Amino acid sequence: MTYCVGFLLESGLVFASDSRTNAGVDYISTYSKLHVFQPAPDRLFVLMAAGNLATTQAVLNRIRRDLAPPAPLAASHLASPQAQAAAAAPVGPDLRDAAYLFEAADYIGQLSVQVQRTFSPSLREAGATGEASFILGGQIAGQPHGLFLIYPQGNAVMATQDTPFLQIGESKYGKPPLDFVGNTKLSLEDAARLCLVSQIVTRRANLTVGPPFEVAMLPKDTLQVSRRLKFGIESPELDRIMEVWATGMKAALQRLPRFSWEQDPL
Amino acid sequence: MTYCVGFLLESGLVFASDSRTNAGVDYISTYSKLHVFQPAPDRLFVLMAAGNLATTQAVLNRIRRDLAPPAPLAASHLASPQAQAAAAAPVGPDLRDAAYLFEAADYIGQLSVQVQRTFSPSLREAGATGEASFILGGQIAGQPHGLFLIYPQGNAVMATQDTPFLQIGESKYGKPPLDFVGNTKLSLEDAARLCLVSQIVTRRANLTVGPPFEVAMLPKDTLQVSRRLKFGIESPELDRIMEVWATGMKAALQRLPRFSWEQDPL
Repeated sequence: MTYCVGFLLESGLVFASDSRTNAGVDYISTYSKLHVFQPAPDRLFVLMAAGNLATTQAVLNRIRRDLAPPAPLAASHLASPQAQAAAAAPVGPDLRDAAYLFEAADYIGQLSVQVQRTFSPSLREAGATGEASFILGGQIAGQPHGLFLIYPQGNAVMATQDTPFLQIGESKYGKPPLDFVGNTKLSLEDAARLCLVSQIVTRRANLTVGPPFEVAMLPKDTLQVSRRLKFGIESPELDRIMEVWATGMKAALQRLPRFSWEQDPL
Repeated sequence: MTYCVGFLLESGLVFASDSRTNAGVDYISTYSKLHVFQPAPDRLFVLMAAGNLATTQAVLNRIRRDLAPPAPLAASHLASPQAQAAAAAPVGPDLRDAAYLFEAADYIGQLSVQVQRTFSPSLREAGATGEASFILGGQIAGQPHGLFLIYPQGNAVMATQDTPFLQIGESKYGKPPLDFVGNTKLSLEDAARLCLVSQIVTRRANLTVGPPFEVAMLPKDTLQVSRRLKFGIESPELDRIMEVWATGMKAALQRLPRFSWEQDPL
């Protein structure tokens, strides 16, 4: 499993991901799921991925290939017909050419569907799925910053002021703090702390979500990641956040209204 | 969907359930999911149910029939052969005869499996499932109070001091407050408040969980439900709990440690 959350703020964007990947419970690995792309000076993208690791890595590799100079011909002779077909199919403007953020989301969605289609017959035979979801956020100069959730089917939804955060992977445990406290007026730092809380409560409940937790902050109109943080398994900061959050919940429990038959606490 | 949570405390047991039942999103109904049984003065049981409503109602009806005087013969002539077979199969000691709480849990598990088996061929044809889960708590005089989660397969697990709460239905959203604050030393009232918080955060995230929320408290060694509460959709108590909890989370966010580049908040 995986848990990634992206937050749309008036002042920019915040991204937070775990780094745990598992195939069953007896094969746990660590992979970064937070990737930054600046294919041209006028644009910056942050991409987080959840789902089938082969799919998400293949999508990332295709994104990088589309941004690289053309590969020598000899290489494509070695590729399987399937892979050649996948490589050949056009999927619209890439991250460098997208005129709008939604075009970049469409591009990633199409890459994802293409990769999934390539492998779906063999995956289906094995009873597995190649599905993957992505969160893409960023900004193209002259346009507002934005945040998209790209579904396994390739289509995408945007974050808005009413629903400023988007989640992929194990999204349920960590949603209430975002629901209750999250809004677009939070500072980048407060939103980053809130996303870390959301990660920490998820990690406590689901073994397949785990540190290192990565955080990236992207202030609007700067076209750069101002802060990129990584909190490892032994991080005292994580311990401290967990401790303060637990203390806060305990204090909130004590402040809840008494039942009619109880004495007032104060 | 449904969300029920039971809490094992040193001082007794607390139960909390929502009352929303749905078949799709366009057929929402209200059903109580919290049922009290006192089949003899030396024992008291509280049963909460989640899953297929036809299954959970059939199980409840069978429990009540097993506790009632035998039905007149004429009635069974009208029953289908399937129903007669189901009615005839022995499932061990019922709630009145169980010598231990675990026997009562086994009995309900067996009833549940029996009902599911009766209807599973027709349900499977319709692409549906008759699965249901139960939380059974209570006490038999002279034995400790206890809490069981009964799986759709009929087997059951107990709450313990390490894992004092059990959940059925939509369990993820409401788990972190229980994880972070819950322990067996809480008072019945604090545990009831915590269970209501767990219900409220779940309700906010999942439309198919909703009020009235019912709460029952069972102090140990009393063999009676000391308090039974119902909080309706317009309940000012629920609004107040939600408000205090949200304020508590906002305060906790402000108390989280600052990042190295920020000024200390105090």
